[in-house]
Order: sequence, then structure tokens, then C-alpha cells
Amino acid sequence: MSKIVIVGGVAGGATAAARLRRLSEKYQIIMFERGEYISFANCGLPYYIGEVITDRNKLLVQTVEGMAKRFRIDVRNLSEVTAIHRDRKTVTVKNIRTGEEYEETYDKLILSPGAKPMIPPIPGIHEANALFTLRNLSDTDKIKAYIDRKKPKSAVVIGGGFIGVEVAENLVKRGVNVTLVEMANQVLAPIDYEMASIVHAHMQENGINLILEDGVKAFEDNGRRIILNSGRTLETDMIILAIGVQPESQLAKNAGLELGVRGTIKVNEYLQTSDPNIYAIGDAIEVKNYIHGFATFVPLAWPANRQGRLVADHIHGIDVKYNGTLGTAIVKIFGLTVAATGNNEKTLKQLGIPYEVVHVHPMSHASYYPNATQMTLKLIFDKETGQIYGAQAVGKDGVDKRIDVIATAIKGGLTVRDLPDLELAYAPPFSSAKDPVNMAGYVASNILDGMVETVQWHEIDEIIANGGTLIDVRTPKEAARGTIHGAINIPLDELRERLAELPKDKTIYVTCQVGLRGYLATRILRDNGFRAKNLDGGYKLYSSVFGTKH
Amino acid sequence: MSKIVIVGGVAGGATAAARLRRLSEKYQIIMFERGEYISFANCGLPYYIGEVITDRNKLLVQTVEGMAKRFRIDVRNLSEVTAIHRDRKTVTVKNIRTGEEYEETYDKLILSPGAKPMIPPIPGIHEANALFTLRNLSDTDKIKAYIDRKKPKSAVVIGGGFIGVEVAENLVKRGVNVTLVEMANQVLAPIDYEMASIVHAHMQENGINLILEDGVKAFEDNGRRIILNSGRTLETDMIILAIGVQPESQLAKNAGLELGVRGTIKVNEYLQTSDPNIYAIGDAIEVKNYIHGFATFVPLAWPANRQGRLVADHIHGIDVKYNGTLGTAIVKIFGLTVAATGNNEKTLKQLGIPYEVVHVHPMSHASYYPNATQMTLKLIFDKETGQIYGAQAVGKDGVDKRIDVIATAIKGGLTVRDLPDLELAYAPPFSSAKDPVNMAGYVASNILDGMVETVQWHEIDEIIANGGTLIDVRTPKEAARGTIHGAINIPLDELRERLAELPKDKTIYVTCQVGLRGYLATRILRDNGFRAKNLDGGYKLYSSVFGTKH
Ligand SMILES: Cc1cc2nc3c(=O)[nH]c(=O)nc-3n(C[C@H](O)[C@H](O)[C@H](O)COP(=O)(O)OP(=O)(O)OC[C@H]3O[C@@H](n4cnc5c(N)ncnc54)[C@H](O)[C@@H]3O)c2cc1C
Ligand SMILES: Cc1cc2nc3c(=O)[nH]c(=O)nc-3n(C[C@H](O)[C@H](O)[C@H](O)COP(=O)(O)OP(=O)(O)OC[C@H]3O[C@@H](n4cnc5c(N)ncnc54)[C@H](O)[C@@H]3O)c2cc1C
Ligand SMILES: CC(C)(COP(=O)(O)OP(=O)(O)OC[C@H]1O[C@@H](n2cnc3c(N)ncnc32)[C@H](O)[C@@H]1OP(=O)(O)O)[C@@H](O)C(=O)NCCC(=O)NCCS
Ligand SMILES: CC(C)(COP(=O)(O)OP(=O)(O)OC[C@H]1O[C@@H](n2cnc3c(N)ncnc32)[C@H](O)[C@@H]1OP(=O)(O)O)[C@@H](O)C(=O)NCCC(=O)NCCS
Repeated sequence: MSKIVIVGGVAGGATAAARLRRLSEKYQIIMFERGEYISFANCGLPYYIGEVITDRNKLLVQTVEGMAKRFRIDVRNLSEVTAIHRDRKTVTVKNIRTGEEYEETYDKLILSPGAKPMIPPIPGIHEANALFTLRNLSDTDKIKAYIDRKKPKSAVVIGGGFIGVEVAENLVKRGVNVTLVEMANQVLAPIDYEMASIVHAHMQENGINLILEDGVKAFEDNGRRIILNSGRTLETDMIILAIGVQPESQLAKNAGLELGVRGTIKVNEYLQTSDPNIYAIGDAIEVKNYIHGFATFVPLAWPANRQGRLVADHIHGIDVKYNGTLGTAIVKIFGLTVAATGNNEKTLKQLGIPYEVVHVHPMSHASYYPNATQMTLKLIFDKETGQIYGAQAVGKDGVDKRIDVIATAIKGGLTVRDLPDLELAYAPPFSSAKDPVNMAGYVASNILDGMVETVQWHEIDEIIANGGTLIDVRTPKEAARGTIHGAINIPLDELRERLAELPKDKTIYVTCQVGLRGYLATRILRDNGFRAKNLDGGYKLYSSVFGTKH
Repeated sequence: MSKIVIVGGVAGGATAAARLRRLSEKYQIIMFERGEYISFANCGLPYYIGEVITDRNKLLVQTVEGMAKRFRIDVRNLSEVTAIHRDRKTVTVKNIRTGEEYEETYDKLILSPGAKPMIPPIPGIHEANALFTLRNLSDTDKIKAYIDRKKPKSAVVIGGGFIGVEVAENLVKRGVNVTLVEMANQVLAPIDYEMASIVHAHMQENGINLILEDGVKAFEDNGRRIILNSGRTLETDMIILAIGVQPESQLAKNAGLELGVRGTIKVNEYLQTSDPNIYAIGDAIEVKNYIHGFATFVPLAWPANRQGRLVADHIHGIDVKYNGTLGTAIVKIFGLTVAATGNNEKTLKQLGIPYEVVHVHPMSHASYYPNATQMTLKLIFDKETGQIYGAQAVGKDGVDKRIDVIATAIKGGLTVRDLPDLELAYAPPFSSAKDPVNMAGYVASNILDGMVETVQWHEIDEIIANGGTLIDVRTPKEAARGTIHGAINIPLDELRERLAELPKDKTIYVTCQVGLRGYLATRILRDNGFRAKNLDGGYKLYSSVFGTKH
């Protein structure tokens, strides 16, 4: 009979425990959790603060008693594992209630300790009274109690990652005036800048005071005043620090286990650490990027759950592997959904991998059926092979579906050329006869096939500044509402008659609203002997970065 | 310069025309359409009748003038192609406005004539005054005008396919008392009976009088009375005949082109008919089933649009193929979404292909986040290889997403074993850390791996009647609200202590609410030396077919 000890009783740990029991009644399973609760819904915490979720019990997906009973697991909460003794295969456990310490043996040890909020050594941080981080229920209770009792008028959220953005929205829901400070030039690192621009506007429309490219230099007056790097000062009633998380790998490190990027625990494809009797899973580990294979850190719930299942199988002797993490992620921000899968442009640039990009703006469902909304869907791919590198989408509706479909296509090894062939469910309330994913596939395939050449939103201004010719093929009415500075308006339906106005000796750049008419125009131009390039994503994308009217 | 003639100016035909023009400015393209309008939204028609769509213009995705101008296409509406002369490569065209006939030459001919409503020779059908079929805008105008002017109190919809069901809902929206008559024992043939049972209940809850397993024998009193095969009589103010569609293949047939199943036009993988200069696409053609390769007829908009693009490419000399139709389909019925992809049990049985089935009942998103609803998701697969044969889902929310993901997985050649590895976007408003598709994959893989054996909803009654032992592992409270006749209640969390009550010499069948606890129970039982099988889908599925309380 094997004795399996698990460190951490939430997403990864509890899943591993449950699966182990399903695999065999014979395992002795001990699950240690430092906190009071196991199996809680970390991801729901911001919404409990915002009173979107009102019943606190709902956050407890399983309880110590429930788990113990159902899965016959020795669940020990308020028990911290403080050391691993690999030589004698034991762990030291500290009972937090009593302070007592003891050793527990293991045959196999699973580490699922998660990741903890980063707390940088900013002057004044320890003196700040109402400064919170958010990881678990006890943090949540503190934040909620503070809001309930102190009724803060203002809050500063530091960090524009998923958690920062979710907390910001939920504080707004509680009537708090929120300022969000982010060091980078955008929130939500998994998406690229032009996509984030849409999010920035939406957050501001919803009352968030967004400060980008600025960081915190110091906290003053017990955290009531924040001094930013720019010199700017913010007065606030409370602070949420959400600049990111770091793997809880101290225990592993002290035990001499090999570490990976950003302090993660290194594991092989079987999720074994450098000691084959010790496995590690979840937020604490280094994973392989599914597409490009580099080592990375992806603290998300899907990988933790998936790895929890796999680790149990591997211990049970089943031949399974973890194949890496795509990094599919999603967040709701007020009325907007933002989602991404695979790698973004920033990452590919860092890796020096060449890529091609398309942006489309399809409707969430048939435009003639009520409540259709336009989304921005970005596809990143290899121009030679069509391999899908990543996708990002922002919109009010149907964004999750399209990113999930593309994430599935990636796992199926499909290329952009296969996307038009995806036979997706169509009726007017759900999609169009050509689904947004089909459409993105068409647009990308046209680039591969040489049907069209494109330029990007960040290239066009310089092209015009250097004397490039840009025609805006929308209607005069549309162009009057805002166009790119320097564009000449020739409506698409007049283009064939007005070709004589255009130069044959230089490239003609074309723009429209979303890129579709621009594409049609470049086809007409090229078939008539002109050189033409289409502005990918059109004025809609351009203006979501640069604003309307230039 | 090639001259391309297209018959039919809606989904397939107009798409082919537009793509041809994008491929080259040089083609001469003539598009004939018998009706007044081209490029209209067939799929939106029921919703215009129901006044869900209020602006009739929105149904015109393109107009004759718009299409002519933008794509430089010679669009001739109200022009019916009445004959094809393959020997001299011409078609005879009848101008419906003037009655004039003329011949037009072609280099390549594309047929996209669609499918027309079936009108069976039922006695009294021609005398029925207010009997309508629904295919195009003119049909729609007639139906809508009748409702607007005559304010019918009652309507009988004959046929429970997608169109019948959509029209029924939209008539209810107009305050009409609707009876739906369907010959089969279920509506919506693409899904199987137990899934349709959920739909039946929902339709009835929404006021539709549903008559199954009955057909129309005769219309009497100018269609004010309908006599059913059962002898039952219905009085009605109007009739919608929606028993299905048949390919418009008469023109092709007269031209001696080879026909396929159900009167479809036969084409090869390049969409060429038996005459290589004549292509055919859309509702009118025979397609290959994507999964099992049999010849079939799938009159849906996605295939028509896809084929329209491909046919243009092939004519232009691009090496493309149509790889068959999966048959992904979806429909909204009041608050419910019903969707399917691939093949259903009925089809597989007919083909004699063995298969395995699982039903799961996951939540649309994290249960602790507001407005999560439970769906029923069915996965059909090969028990040996895990190949996905089909999926069906019914639920209030998130059904389209899961079917699209599975349709994508099928196209990616993924098996049920790969579904747990799909890294889908998770945040509480959108999904769970194990998405419903992951979950269906886990449940199916467990069958492949021999972790569990299951029985289906239609097998359990007989098993018990023959003396089988069934235990219901839900709580006594749950069991009291309704259980399967003959089940013994042993709550899961007491099972380990009550094993002595159970026989070791015969198979123990287990049921719970959705199948999860039943699975846990079978694991405990088997590890303790019992033979056990789980009722797939649990009492929830069972009772959606047979009703609660037995
Ligand atoms: C506010 C918030 C919102 C989130 N939202 C999302 C979301 O929408 N989508 C998403 O995909 N992910 C989200 N996440 C991330 C997700 O919760 C994590 O990826 C997931 O919980 C990781 O699982 P894990 O098992 O690795 O770690 P955790 O779930 O964090 O569990 C680790 C546990 O180990 C315990 N522990 C650590 N060290 C020891 C020790 N030495 N001894 C005993 N116990 C120890 C900790 O107390 C902790 O409870 C969110 C996280 C937070 C905090
Ligand atoms: C009410 C309704 C709702 C629908 N809802 C959905 C849905 O939700 N989802 C879905 O996927 N599909 C739906 N469909 C089906 C979808 O509309 C068709 O699959 C699609 O339009 C087929 O395209 P097609 O080009 O083959 O034929 P059509 O779009 O029907 O076009 C054929 C055209 O050819 C013309 N024609 C025929 N013969 C001749 C001739 N000899 N000379 C000149 N013209 C000719 C006809 O007048 C017709 O306009 C629906 C259909 C209807 C009627
Ligand atoms: C609660 C918790 C312990 C449950 O773990 P779990 O038992 O593995 O997960 P589930 O309850 O979803 O059940 C999944 C199992 O039931 C099976 N199952 C699900 N539905 C089924 C059905 N209808 N019929 C048969 N089996 C079913 C699955 O196959 C799977 O079993 P397997 O792993 O042996 O294949 C764990 O998920 C947890 O702690 N969650 C909360 C923390 C968390 O995830 N946080 C991050 C997100 S907020
Ligand atoms: C209206 C109709 C003629 C349009 O046909 P279409 O031009 O092929 O289709 P779309 O307008 O969607 O445009 C698609 C084209 O634009 C391109 N495109 C779309 N968005 C783009 C963007 N943002 N940038 C660049 N190109 C874009 C696509 O690549 C595709 O071109 P391609 O085929 O050369 O690759 C045809 O779809 C139709 O008649 N529809 C109504 C009937 C119908 O479908 N009924 C059934 C459903 S209700």
C-alpha cells in the first residue's frame, strides 16, 4: 500500500487527492493545507467582494469534512508543511492551531502549494494600514469587512493583471472610486497593446481612473497617500496590491529540488521534480509553452486541475504526460470579455520568431438578429506554414466561444488554412453562416495565398509621413466621422471608375472600416496593375488605439 | 476570359459570385435568380414573422444593385433558368417579368438552386386557404401579412424540424395558439430521443401543443380542419407545412446530370457534377458525411457558404476540395439551445456501427457565479479508438460553445482522450476549471480505460424487471423527490460502511442524480470486490425521458 502525501489542498492538490482515491481504495492519502479551507473557489473571490456572489458558502467547493468522508482522505487543514526530508522520505508538519510539529512519512509526495502575491519592498508598504492582497478566503474576508465597515470612498488597485482588473471592477460595483495603476503601457499582459486599448477605453467609460506607465515609488501617511514614479500623488482609502504572483517554491528549494524560471519548481513531462518521488503541480511549477516549447510560468486553474488529475494517474502507473500549457485565459471586465490563447506578439518578438497578424471585426451573431455586437478577433500565425501561434479577442459577446474554438484548433494541429473548414453551429442567434473563426481563417489564408498584402495599425502613420498614398474606400459620410490623417476618400463602389486618379508607380495603401472593403479594393487595384496593400483591421482598429479624428 | 453563369443568387450562388470577382476582375459573371431578391437571410425569416426582427430591410444582406455595383456582376433577378444545353454550353432563361425566353452561353456553370419545401399529396391540400410554406421573403411576407391582418387565434405547424420549431416559437410570440404535429416520436431529427425529450417538455411549458407520432391524413373545410392519422381532429386558423425540404434538382435532372440520394445532384470532391463544366453546391447537392463517408443531404447555410467559396477557387484553378459535411446544427427554442454535430445514435444504428455513449450534466459556468445553468451534453464515440462520432447538447446557455469546440476537435482528428487536454478559457462567468467538454472527455475516457462500465437510460427498467439490483446513492432527501422504481437508497457517503448489505455474486447497478456520484460508488464497489455498473446520465436523464416519480 502506497502512502501519498499532498501539500496544498485547493485546485491541484484536492483534484489529485480525489482522483487518487477513484483510482484505488487502497492508497493512504494525507492532504495538508496551511489555511483553514480546502477546495475553495479562488477565482470567485473578487466577485464575493463585489457582492456579485452573495453566499460565502458557495465559494467552498468542498469542505474538510466532505472531502474526508467522500474520498476517505486524511485532510489536515491549518497544517503547514515546513520541510521535506528526502533522505528519509518524510515531511515536517506544523499544526498551526497548536504550534506542534511532527514528521509524516511518504512514499510519494505531491506539491501543489500555489503562488502567492508579490509584495515589493516599496518604502512605506509595511506601514500602510489598508493595503490588501488577494489570494484566499481570509484575504477576501478582510477586504470585504473593510469595505462593509469603513465604506471607503476611494481605492487604488496596483497592477492591471487579471486579478487587479477583476478587483477593480468589483470595487466599482461596491460604489468605490477606483484608480488602477499599471507600470506597463497596457493592462492584461496576455493580450497585445492594440487589443488592450479597447479595454482601456472600456474601463475608463466604466469609471475607472486608469494610470498607465507609472509605478509606485512610496506609500506615505500609513498608506493614505501613494507617490508614483512620475511624481504624481494619489490619496486613497484603501489599496489592493495585485502586481502579480510568484510560485511558492521555498519548501522545494530548501529541499534541494531543482528550480526553473521565475523561481518555479522544475518538473519533467510526468510532473516529477528532480526527485522522482516528489511531484509538483499547479501554480508553483515551470511549464513548457505548448506551441514554442520555452519554459514559462502560467498560474491558472485549468493547468492546476489538469495536472492534478495527471499526477494521480502517473503515480498509479498509468502512462500519461503533461504536454505543456497554451495559456488560454479569459476575463470579464464590466460588459466586455477579453480572452486569449497561445502566444502574443510581444512574446514572439522576444523569441525572435517571425509571424503574421490579422484582425477581423465580425459580429457575435447574425447582424440582422437582435443584440449582435462586434468583436475584435486577432489571429497570429506563421506566414510560411499557417501554424496558429495565438489568438486574442475582445468583445461583448461570443468571445469565449471563438477563443475556445481556436484553442481546440491549436491542440488539433490545425493551421489557419483549416479554420474556414471548421463546421460550426449556425443559426441567427448564435453565429453567422461564416463564423468569426472561419472569417479569421479566410483573411489569414488570403495572406498566405498572396491574395492580399497588409500593413498594420502601427505602421501606417510612418508610411504616410514618408509620402505614402493612402485611400479610404468608405463612404464620404463614414470618412467624415473620422479618418486617418492624409487619407484620400475614394468610395469602394466608385473605385473602378476612378482608377485614373491613382499612381501606378508606387504602392497604394487602402483603408476602410474593418478591412473587408479595403481588401476588395486591393483586389480591384492589383488586378488593374496597381500595387496595393490593405490596412489590416481598418480604421476601427486604428482608432481604437489612436482615438477618432486625426 | 471565362464566362461563368450562376443559377441561384442566395447563400451558395452569391458567395461564389463574390469570391470569383475577388479572384479576378476578368471573369464575366452572370447570376440568375428566379425570385425578386438575392442574398437574403433565409435563416432570419422565422424571426421576422415573430417580430423579433422588425426591420425587413435587414433581411437583405445584399441587393441586386449593391451586388452588381460592388462586384461588377450581371445580376438578373426574376430570371429563371429553365434548361441547360450541355452540348452547346448554354442555358435557357425565362424573364419572369416579361415572360421572354433567351439563351445564355457559359464556360462554367454553377448550380446553387437550393431546396424547396416538400408538399405531400394530402387530400384537401390544394383547397386549404391559409396553408403556407416558408422558404423565401415572398413566403414570409404572405405569412406575416396573414397574421397581421387576420389575427389568427390558432395555428398548426406540421413538422418538427428546425424550421417548424422556429416558426412555432415565433407564432407563439405573435400570440397564436400553436399545435405542432410531428410524425416521428420526437422533434429535431439530428438529436436522439432522450435529448429531444428535454425539448418536448420545454416546448410544452412554453404553450405549444405537441402531437408526436401522428401525421396528417386530410385537410377539410378549406384547411380549417385537419384530420390526423390517429383520427384526431384539429381546428385551425392557419397551417404551416414544414415537413422538410427537397433538393431543387429538376433542372439538373433534365440536363441528364447524375443524381444522388434523395434526389440531390451528385458532385465529386471538387463540387463538379457528372459534367465537369457544371458545378453544383448548397442545399441541392449530395454530400459525403465527414465522419463515416456515406452519401447524405444536409441543407444548411454553412455548407452552402463554404462550397460557394470553394467552387470559385476551383474554377479559378486553385487546388481545393470539399471534405464532406459534419452536419453541425443548432436551434434556439424559447429559452433553450439545442445543438448537434457529427452522427447521432439513430444514424449509427442504421449503419450498423458500434458506438459508446456518455451523457454529462455540467453547469454552463462556475456554479458559484450567478446564472449558471445545467446543460445535458451527450458524446458518442468509438469504444476502441475513442474517435468522436458525434455530440449533442441541450441547455439554456453555453451549448453552442461546447458543440463548436467538439466540432473543431472532430475536424482536428482528436479523440475523446484528447478532450480533457483541451485548454479552454476559464474564469467564473464563462466556464469551470474543467470545462463541460473536458468533463465529457474524462467520462468517456474512463469507459475506454475500463475505469467504469455503464448502462443507458433505456436499459435500466428491463434490468430491474429481470431482478437486477439498483442502488440510488443520492441523499434520502433527493431520492424522496423521485427515484427509479426498485432502487435501494444507500447514500454515497455511507456506502463504504454498508457494503455488507450488497450481494457479491451479481452486478450492482448504481444511479445518482447525473452520474458523478454513481461513478464514485462504482469505483468503491469494484475496489471492494463487487461488480458494478453506473447508470449513465443518472436520474436526471432518466426522468427527462420518463418523467419524475416512478
Ligand atoms: C483572486 C483570484 C482569482 C483567480 N481567478 C482565476 C480565473 O478566473 N481563472 C483561472 O484560470 N485562474 C484564476 N486564478 C488562479 C487559480 O486560482 C490558480 O491557478 C489555482 O488555484 C492554482 O492551483 P494550485 O493548486 O496550484 O494552488 P492553490 O489553489 O493556490 O492552492 C495552494 C494551496 O497550498 C497551500 N500551501 C502552500 N504552501 C503550503 C505548505 N507549505 N503547507 C501546507 N499548505 C500549503 C496554500 O495555502 C494554498 O491554499 C485566480 C486566483 C486568485 C487568487
Ligand atoms: C426559414 C429558413 C430558416 C433557415 N434557418 C437556417 C439556420 O438557422 N441555419 C442554417 O444553417 N440554415 C438554415 N436554413 C437553410 C439555409 O438557408 C440554406 O441551407 C441555404 O440558404 C442554402 O443555400 P443555397 O444557395 O443552396 O440555396 P438558397 O439559399 O435557397 O438559394 C437558392 C436560390 O436559387 C433560386 N433558384 C432555384 N432554381 C432556380 C432556377 N432554375 N433559376 C433561377 N433561380 C433559381 C431560388 O429561387 C433560391 O433563391 C434555413 C432555411 C430556411 C428556409
Ligand atoms: C472539488 C474538487 C476536489 C473536485 O475534484 P474532482 O473530484 O477531481 O472533480 P469533479 O468533482 O469535477 O469530478 C470530476 C470527476 O467526476 C467524473 N464525472 C463528472 N461528471 C460525471 C458524470 N456525469 N458521470 C460520471 N462521471 C462523472 C469525471 O470523470 C472525473 O473523474 P475522473 O477524474 O476519475 O475521470 C477540486 O476540483 C477542487 O478542489 N476544486 C476547487 C478549487 C479550484 O479548482 N480552484 C480553482 C478554480 S476556482
Ligand atoms: C452577402 C454575400 C453575397 C457575401 O458573400 P461574401 O462576399 O463571400 O462574404 P462576406 O461579405 O462575408 O465577405 C467575406 C470575404 O471578405 C473577407 N473579409 C472579411 N472580413 C475581412 C476583414 N476584416 N479584412 C479583410 N478581409 C475580410 C474574407 O476573407 C472573404 O473574402 P475571400 O472569400 O476572398 O477570402 C453572401 O454571403 C450572401 O448572399 N449571404 C446571404 C445569404 C445567406 O448566406 N443565407 C444563409 C444564411 S441566413
